[in-house]
Parts: sequence; C-alpha cells; structure tokens
Amino acid sequence: MADPDQARVGQLSELDQALFTDNDRQAPVTSGRQTVEVGSLTCESGAVLPSVTVAYETWGALNAARDNAVLVCHALSGDSHAVGWWDRIVGPGKVVDTDRYFVVGTNVLGGCQGTTGPTSLLDDRPYAARFPFVTVGDMVEVQRRLMSHLGVPGLALACGGSMGGMQALEWSVRFPGFVKRVWATASCRAHSAMQIGFNETGRQAIMRDPKWRGGDYPLDDQPVQGLSVARMVGHLSYLSEAAFDKKFGRRLQDKESFEYSTGHEFAVESYLSYQGDKFTGRFDANSYLVLTRAIDYFELASMAGSQSSYLFTSFTSDWIYPSHQSAELHGMAVAAGCQSRHVDIDVPMGHDAFLLDDIGQTEAVRAFLAE
Amino acid sequence: MADPDQARVGQLSELDQALFTDNDRQAPVTSGRQTVEVGSLTCESGAVLPSVTVAYETWGALNAARDNAVLVCHALSGDSHAVGWWDRIVGPGKVVDTDRYFVVGTNVLGGCQGTTGPTSLLDDRPYAARFPFVTVGDMVEVQRRLMSHLGVPGLALACGGSMGGMQALEWSVRFPGFVKRVWATASCRAHSAMQIGFNETGRQAIMRDPKWRGGDYPLDDQPVQGLSVARMVGHLSYLSEAAFDKKFGRRLQDKESFEYSTGHEFAVESYLSYQGDKFTGRFDANSYLVLTRAIDYFELASMAGSQSSYLFTSFTSDWIYPSHQSAELHGMAVAAGCQSRHVDIDVPMGHDAFLLDDIGQTEAVRAFLAE
Repeated sequence: MADPDQARVGQLSELDQALFTDNDRQAPVTSGRQTVEVGSLTCESGAVLPSVTVAYETWGALNAARDNAVLVCHALSGDSHAVGWWDRIVGPGKVVDTDRYFVVGTNVLGGCQGTTGPTSLLDDRPYAARFPFVTVGDMVEVQRRLMSHLGVPGLALACGGSMGGMQALEWSVRFPGFVKRVWATASCRAHSAMQIGFNETGRQAIMRDPKWRGGDYPLDDQPVQGLSVARMVGHLSYLSEAAFDKKFGRRLQDKESFEYSTGHEFAVESYLSYQGDKFTGRFDANSYLVLTRAIDYFELASMAGSQSSYLFTSFTSDWIYPSHQSAELHGMAVAAGCQSRHVDIDVPMGHDAFLLDDIGQTEAVRAFLAE
Repeated sequence: MADPDQARVGQLSELDQALFTDNDRQAPVTSGRQTVEVGSLTCESGAVLPSVTVAYETWGALNAARDNAVLVCHALSGDSHAVGWWDRIVGPGKVVDTDRYFVVGTNVLGGCQGTTGPTSLLDDRPYAARFPFVTVGDMVEVQRRLMSHLGVPGLALACGGSMGGMQALEWSVRFPGFVKRVWATASCRAHSAMQIGFNETGRQAIMRDPKWRGGDYPLDDQPVQGLSVARMVGHLSYLSEAAFDKKFGRRLQDKESFEYSTGHEFAVESYLSYQGDKFTGRFDANSYLVLTRAIDYFELASMAGSQSSYLFTSFTSDWIYPSHQSAELHGMAVAAGCQSRHVDIDVPMGHDAFLLDDIGQTEAVRAFLAE
C-alpha cells in the first residue's frame, strides 16, 4: 500500500531536532508577564465570574496608526509566552515579526498561567470545582477586553494553532471588522467524535483518579497520576506514526534486552511517562478539564458577517486535526464571501508540525500577510 | 483535501449495525469450554510456570485424515469462544465453516478466561504480580500442547486478527510444516512506537491507579478505574475517524443542550465510559498488562523456513495497524519463498473491521482456502 509518510521519513531528520528541543530561547524585548483585571464576566453557560484577571505579554510596539497589533492565541497547554512555545514563528525577524508588529500573547480564561481559572482564588480559596465550564467565546470576550485595556482598536492578525486557531476564528465572527486577518493552523470548525473521544479519555483519567476528589483537591496535592495519563493520551495524538517511528522506533530504554517487567522496556514508554509527569508540574487538572471541554464545545456555524480574510494551514500527517477539517473551514470562508486560502502542507510529523517553521508554513503566512 | 473516508461514509450505514451489535448469537454444536492441563512451561523470559491449564472450545469434528483442523486465535480482549466474537467468520456455512473444519478456539496464556494467567491460583492464591510477562511464542507453545492433547497432527489453517494474527504467524515459524495456511488480518510484524505508545498509556492508567497495589490486588477489588481508562484508550484506536463520526458525530447524550458539567455531554463520551466500565467486569487488570506487553514484545524476524502459505488482509482505514504493516508481512513471506497474498480492503470503519464479513474479507479467505 502507498505510504507517503514512510517515503518521506527522511524529512524528519531535519525537523526532528526542532520538534523535540525545548524552545525557551532568548526572547526579544518583552513586557514580561503582566496582568490586568477586566471586570466580571457572564459566561455562555450563564455562570458569573465576579472578577476576571488576564495574564498577557507583549513584544514590539503599537505604531502611530495603531494598526500593527497581532494576537497570538495558544493551544491547550500553552500560555502567554508566545515567543517561547512558538518562537519559530513569532519573534524578531520571524514571520510574525516583533520588530514590525505589536504582538500580544495571553493566557486563556480557564487556564492556569495567570489568567482567571480553577486555581484562582474566590473568597480566599481556589475556585477548584466551583470554576464554571467556559467556552472559546468566553475566552475571546476576555481577550477583547484586554485589547481595550491596551488601546488596540483592531488586529492586523489573530492567529493560533489547534485550540489557538479556534480562538482566532471566534474573534472573526464575534467581533466582525476588528480582525483584518485570521490564520488558523491545524485547527477545525468543530471537534469530531474522535477528537472529543481523545479529550474525554483524558478527562476520565483525571476524574477517576481518587485524588481528584470531585475537583476540590488542594493545589499541592492534585491528581497527578490521572493528569499525567491524560497528557499521555494527548501526546499520542500529537505525532504521526512516522514521527513516533523516527524518534523512538522499537529502541529499548537503557537496556540491551527485555527485562520482562512493568518498568519501561521501550524508549517511547519512558518518553510518554516523562511528558506526562513533567506536565503535572506546570498544569492544573481542573484547568485541563475546563479547556478540553471548551474546545469540544466549540462549533463554528459559519463565517457570515465576517470581514476578515483567512489563511488555513494543515498538515497531511496530522491525523487528529486532519487536513479535511481545514478544507472545510476554507469552504465556509469562501461561502461567506471572504478572502480565503488553504495550504495543505505535506510533512510527516503530525499535529505538532504547526509549531515549526521551514516546512512551508512560514512561506504561506508571509504571502498571506503581504496581500 | 481528498478524504476517501468521508466519501465512503455511506458504506457505514450497512456495517454500522454489525460493528456495534453484540455477537453472542446461537452457537452451533460445540464442545463447550473445556480445560486441559499441559504441564509446566519455561517461558521465554526464563520464568517457570509449574503447571499450565488451557481453556479451549471446539466446533465440528476432526475428519478421518485429521487434516481439517483450524486454530482461531483471539485478539487482546477475546477468548476461546470464537463462534461468538468472530461469528461472522467462523460457524456453520461461514468462511471458516464449522461443518467442514474442526475449529479450535483457545484462551491465550496470560489471559483471564480459563487459561493460566494472573488470576490463576498458585499456592492457593492468585498469581497476581507473581505472574511472569509472557510472549506470543509462549502462547503458541501452550497451543501446540493443546493440539497434541486433541490429537491434531497439523493445522489446515491458523488465523486471527490483531494479536490473533501474531499468534498465527508465530505458529508458522515456530513449528514449520505444522500449519498449511496462515491468515493474519489487521496484524503486523512488530508493533511500531505508536502502537507501543497506545498500549503503554493503557498500562500506565492501570499501574497509576492506587488500587493496582503493585499488582497484588484482591480479585474482587481490582483497579477498575485504571482498567476502564485503559480500555477507553484502546477503543480510541479501534475505530476510524469516519466510524466515530458516523456512529456518534456531535450528538449529545440524553440532553438538548450542553449542561456545562463534568458529566457526559456527548454521546461518544458515554460510549467510551460504558465500554471501559463494562470491560472491567470481564477482564483482569494484570492480564491486560501481560497481554499488551506480549504484543509489544512480538517481533517476527523473517518467515525463513516456514512451509505455510499466507494471506494478509488489512483495511485502508485501520490507522493503528495500518495497511503498510500487512504489506510488509507479505513482502517478508515472498522473500522467504512462501506463497503469499495481501488483500488491502478499502472500507471506512477502522481496525475493528477485521471482525466483519461482507466487506471483501470473506471472499479473500474463501479464495485462499480454495487454492
């Protein structure tokens, strides 16, 4: 059978390094993480948050015309530090050029990196189980208030991958005319049953951990085992079969032959546990529930009324956010009379390819911004 | 982007029923489940099992020439009751015809349906953590002894899907000349890193459940939450995106609108939890660890010396045991000078398609058996 991934597996040698290297390089001039209180919020669910704080970071400067602002929206496990997790795309001289644009990164509502979420305090104790399930629309409403605070009258670009793409899309229909361009990469109109299934399996891993305690766990004793397993489930979906094979194959973990034990026999096993366990040091289990729910709820009906132009990028080996989902978005944008392009990029590494440059993604964005 | 699954999703209407219906129909004449003690076993790991019992079931009768025996090998969660879980393939008038063949189904070594495994007794208490990690080779060694007990001097066919296919393959190289034909469906030469990753995530879900207790849990209080999550991880891989969409889409679970709660919002969530929880009633957590390890260990080096002819079937939408793995097996068989054919079947439902008839699989097997 034809297997394009296998045929192109050589491409991975060059990209392997990129994908598996920590991206916390020297950042350009930045505001550092700041916070601002943006008032109370009535969520789509009807729940009311009496006070919402947004954590954000900016790079570059707003120009005199105030038309060079860019909002970078993060994916599930990201934060406001865009010139970090996305520094191949955002930074000085990068395609989202902080020498040219005033770039804003924010942590989403419901997150755990400074913006109001389940670990935030209400009445002197963490929200925990009291934190409501929010939507991508709620996240974007909070980001809109941040733009007011920053004196940004409109966005030259809203962009993001995966969950970040959903936010950028939501911006364009919720605040028509505010966003000139939307770039959504490895994203979709609405999660399929399979995407919901992956998220739900992670949620069940958390909620079935007795340490979850209905959501009301002490922050220093969260359900780390369940959260770690949830992260492993996520990681399974972020890479392609070819990427897993290239990186790990059937290599054993620090041994010459099988030990016939419950310990890690294969390198890929050690990698997954490492990723899972590391995640619990920087992420909150309730936040994981809230954010995965938000993206499962997300369902863009149409781009009717949108005044944005769109770029959709996707990756042929991304089986969890497959290319046909970006093609669907492109079709919807065209149907709504919007300028739109879809660039399907033939690379072997899977969903996480959206983090990379030099695979055709940069070129597509550069052309889009030059229009 | 081209998406053949979506284009063919209509095919699922007919097959949907089959895939999601319990297959416990009226069985033909059967021996009922029997057991036989086949002696002690030194496992590939070096561990010694002082006494091994095999649970098996037979259908039909051995003919005078004793050349009509068929061994049906089960997949991860199966058992000896082949005319049950595979009754579209095995039974009176089916392609593996119990009116013609003497069909033997067995529960594998390490399983939990009658054959010696972690729930079996040693010194008056369950093996539990004392049960060794076994290999597909160990399973087949035990099956070989069962054949001696049954007076079967050779097999007309050894067959199975997924883990069952691995056993059939192992037979052909471990006991050359014993097996005339091997049919392996939705199987592989060796698990890829991604396949190991899925299994390992399930194992971690079990071992990180505090009720696992290092493997030494009471049988009436096993780590049901971890085992349930492990089963959910498995189920994610058994269906294709198109099959999940066809069966569940974004349909809500017994509600008109979102409840913004931790309960099941979407039907697919309810399905996964149901499958996970149901599984814990019939499966043992340690057995799950042992069997998933066995298939991760499995690595067929070559068919050199094999005297079998081979049929490999695969399914274009099976992303966890993708078609190229069956193509690889076919190439290996040809390289070893064996008769071989590979039939890649273009159906949309994913890995579990191997359970079905009327999709081209039956026809391929019929032709293979008629050669």
